[in-house]
Amino acid sequence: MPTMSGLKMIKHSRLLAGAAVRLDAVCSAPLPRNHLIQHRMASKAITLENINPNIVKLEYAVRGPLVIRAAEIEKELEKGAKKPFKRVIKANIGDAHAMGQKPITFIRQVLACVSLPELIDTYDFPSDVKKRAREILEGCGGQSVGSYTASHGIELIRRHVAEYIERRDGHPAKWDDIVLTGGASNGIKNVLQLLCNDLGGKPSGVLIPIPQYPLYSASLAEYGLTQVGYYLDEDNAWALDEAELERALKSAKDCNVRAIAVINPGNPTGQVLTRSNIETIIKFAHRHNLLLLADEVYQDNVYAEGSKFFSFKKVLRELGAPYTNELELASFMSISKGYMGECGLRGGWMELVNFDKAVQANLYKCISAMLCPTVLGQSALDLVAKPPSKGEPSYELWIKEKTAVLDSLNKRAKMIADTFNSMQGFKCNVVQGAMYAFPSIDMPPKAIEAAKAAGKAPDVYYAFKLLEETGICIVPGSGFGQRPGTFHFRTTILPQPALLQEMLDIFKNFHEKFTKEHA
Amino acid sequence: MPTMSGLKMIKHSRLLAGAAVRLDAVCSAPLPRNHLIQHRMASKAITLENINPNIVKLEYAVRGPLVIRAAEIEKELEKGAKKPFKRVIKANIGDAHAMGQKPITFIRQVLACVSLPELIDTYDFPSDVKKRAREILEGCGGQSVGSYTASHGIELIRRHVAEYIERRDGHPAKWDDIVLTGGASNGIKNVLQLLCNDLGGKPSGVLIPIPQYPLYSASLAEYGLTQVGYYLDEDNAWALDEAELERALKSAKDCNVRAIAVINPGNPTGQVLTRSNIETIIKFAHRHNLLLLADEVYQDNVYAEGSKFFSFKKVLRELGAPYTNELELASFMSISKGYMGECGLRGGWMELVNFDKAVQANLYKCISAMLCPTVLGQSALDLVAKPPSKGEPSYELWIKEKTAVLDSLNKRAKMIADTFNSMQGFKCNVVQGAMYAFPSIDMPPKAIEAAKAAGKAPDVYYAFKLLEETGICIVPGSGFGQRPGTFHFRTTILPQPALLQEMLDIFKNFHEKFTKEHA
Repeated sequence: MPTMSGLKMIKHSRLLAGAAVRLDAVCSAPLPRNHLIQHRMASKAITLENINPNIVKLEYAVRGPLVIRAAEIEKELEKGAKKPFKRVIKANIGDAHAMGQKPITFIRQVLACVSLPELIDTYDFPSDVKKRAREILEGCGGQSVGSYTASHGIELIRRHVAEYIERRDGHPAKWDDIVLTGGASNGIKNVLQLLCNDLGGKPSGVLIPIPQYPLYSASLAEYGLTQVGYYLDEDNAWALDEAELERALKSAKDCNVRAIAVINPGNPTGQVLTRSNIETIIKFAHRHNLLLLADEVYQDNVYAEGSKFFSFKKVLRELGAPYTNELELASFMSISKGYMGECGLRGGWMELVNFDKAVQANLYKCISAMLCPTVLGQSALDLVAKPPSKGEPSYELWIKEKTAVLDSLNKRAKMIADTFNSMQGFKCNVVQGAMYAFPSIDMPPKAIEAAKAAGKAPDVYYAFKLLEETGICIVPGSGFGQRPGTFHFRTTILPQPALLQEMLDIFKNFHEKFTKEHA
Repeated sequence: MPTMSGLKMIKHSRLLAGAAVRLDAVCSAPLPRNHLIQHRMASKAITLENINPNIVKLEYAVRGPLVIRAAEIEKELEKGAKKPFKRVIKANIGDAHAMGQKPITFIRQVLACVSLPELIDTYDFPSDVKKRAREILEGCGGQSVGSYTASHGIELIRRHVAEYIERRDGHPAKWDDIVLTGGASNGIKNVLQLLCNDLGGKPSGVLIPIPQYPLYSASLAEYGLTQVGYYLDEDNAWALDEAELERALKSAKDCNVRAIAVINPGNPTGQVLTRSNIETIIKFAHRHNLLLLADEVYQDNVYAEGSKFFSFKKVLRELGAPYTNELELASFMSISKGYMGECGLRGGWMELVNFDKAVQANLYKCISAMLCPTVLGQSALDLVAKPPSKGEPSYELWIKEKTAVLDSLNKRAKMIADTFNSMQGFKCNVVQGAMYAFPSIDMPPKAIEAAKAAGKAPDVYYAFKLLEETGICIVPGSGFGQRPGTFHFRTTILPQPALLQEMLDIFKNFHEKFTKEHA
């Protein structure tokens, strides 16, 4: 940093050169804190004081300070630093392949073929791999995945998605209501952005679950939308409670609540909503004229006996009038989760139901300026939407690999909840679905004091201690939201079984030590 | 559309069910037009009247109504409709592979290997292909391109980009100032979004060239930023003129101008800025304390004799104090253009120079909520940043393919400008670089009248006629901006030579006919 007098000099010389327009702007801006005087004198055009305040507010805990520290620790270990552990276990993010899950062979074979079409004729791939690769290339300009596609994706693939939805729900889906996206997050943000409009001088608000996946809180902050949290019912397997929805809606005085987001199966909470719970939510949204965002990226990840995934679209169609043809629904799917776990390929889709046609046209127009989602991501998505059928050469391997992944996740979901529940001060709901456990922990009063002294929230303090002492990286509950006075964390169930067992053993020891130290 | 009374009934029934909150919001909003009364009664939660007004404003001509019509015509042709032409020639978008350009073999071989790593050991690829694929996989979690990477990209690839920039400029680049993106557009939007802040009650403004690539106008509209256009000097090969920059800046009374965007080589205008022109722009930006956005995605596409690409970074470094270490610069690159033309893979990077560290950290934080750019796009970008070196097995083929593409583009750039200049009423600057020609056309007064009668801008009228009568799809100049009373259009130089010659012949005939019809 230059010294204060240096800063003055720089600014002075630039003022003389005619910086009037920008300086006026900066000087007339409200200055939130006294120490900013120094920053006003700094020579940068873009500073923390004059950038988009929404960006400053935005937080995304899944990749927040703990994860940044975890990456530093990994580098320290590489350089030979001595630590009480040999490796960082990243249980902070739903990143299956990074935790050792193998890709589905069929997906990768087709990707290789569309990337380098000469392989179709020169390598010994199953005939259905070759056929699917040729079909995808037919859908590409110049038969190359290096061409732009339509902004909402290749028509053939949108049709395959519609067929997938029809098979899943037993109800028709329109292919031109399907938008392919570069991951579900892109789609969710595109839809949320539609809501930015200060009607009657109040910002729009969106009901989101607490705890929630922080893409929602981050995107609402980014767009200047108001977050209206409704608590999930921890004592009732994280279900949604109608009275709580009404309470949350009534509490929102300074905004116009225009939408509700629901994550099912739940992230970070792992619940799978019952059909009757979904009906309640649909009726609530319709009653209050809300757009419903259904985040259904974990639809393949259902483990608990008695739990079953129902899409909001299916329930909407079966509820009949006035819901079926009135409630506006956007549902989101991804290739990053499920049994495929292809996070790095960036593929997803959204289905728009009952949207006003002009609104949908405007959404499509907005998407068009971003050209198109990655064609290799779209290609992988095509194979998820239309996997090999029984009798096709790739079917046996595909079903074997898929089943192995889901069975193993199922076992890990049980293992993790059982282990946490065997630990003193822990309470963990059954992981019915998705990829996470979100246990609550009793925080010893001394730990709360120590956290305060360290300037951290108690769960953040706990997570940092865990990371520094064991190398385990989890995300504190405050990154997702939790009832005041309660403390949680999210861990994925993704480490492979042996590593997961090791992680849970280390965790148990750490927690006992932590409890003693703060007794 | 339901009838009015039907609408009333729907709304009434929903009112009874308790839609008070949302209705209040809608009713208290200012109603811009009388006929909206009907819309207020509609049953949709999200309507054209209450969505984000910026999205309604946003326009992106490169994929606008003409292109939508072109797609319809293609479908009509497929179904056997009789037209005076057999195929649509899409000269509207810089989509090289769609127009028959072949992918670079080295890029696609490595992509196949990282997609399906078993190919590294089982297929006869050159050794450097295998080596590069292994290196990329080493940089991926679990050695899979299906893992998330850091939000700003794989470190190894960021380092390769920094080395590329060092080789290009002869000056150091810091790898941690490089951000990998899902195409240049993403990076540009991320940086523009930083500027959203109504300092002193005025929105931020951004200087952009006129004509411009409409990503800029679209993104400014989307973010509620004010577009401040500076005209490029058509009579001086579309150079930037200092007096015009000052005029534009002074003209911006209702906003705080905080940044200037420059596209070099130019899109849609095809100019390659001289070093001295770049120096002028840097000094101008510094004098007025503006952030400089340098869109340099066509840096490999320079054709005209005497033209040479200088990066803003290089010139900045060589200008010395106070510019070198003060001016904030973000420069953008893409794998969609150049000799590779890999639009569909979605890969790009930005380099941030002299950014305030806290601002950069906030930008990185904002990016993190979007997880990461596609790993296959990053992989392709790695091969562009670090292509095969002389002596490596893939070098000869790589240089042969690269040279063939650029030589052919060079010839087409000349062919297209020469042909347009041979046509009555056309005037076309030399296409020094990039992938487009942007000729001006004299519009007959009768054509202007006919356009008015059809409710279209004259250049839009012309482009629609051209499309309907010949199947050639171009983008009217009004989509990019042009001096009032002048008319232009943008065409790419991407159709392969034989098709381009055919297109130009058809164009010539059309123009003669159009001129006669409107004489």
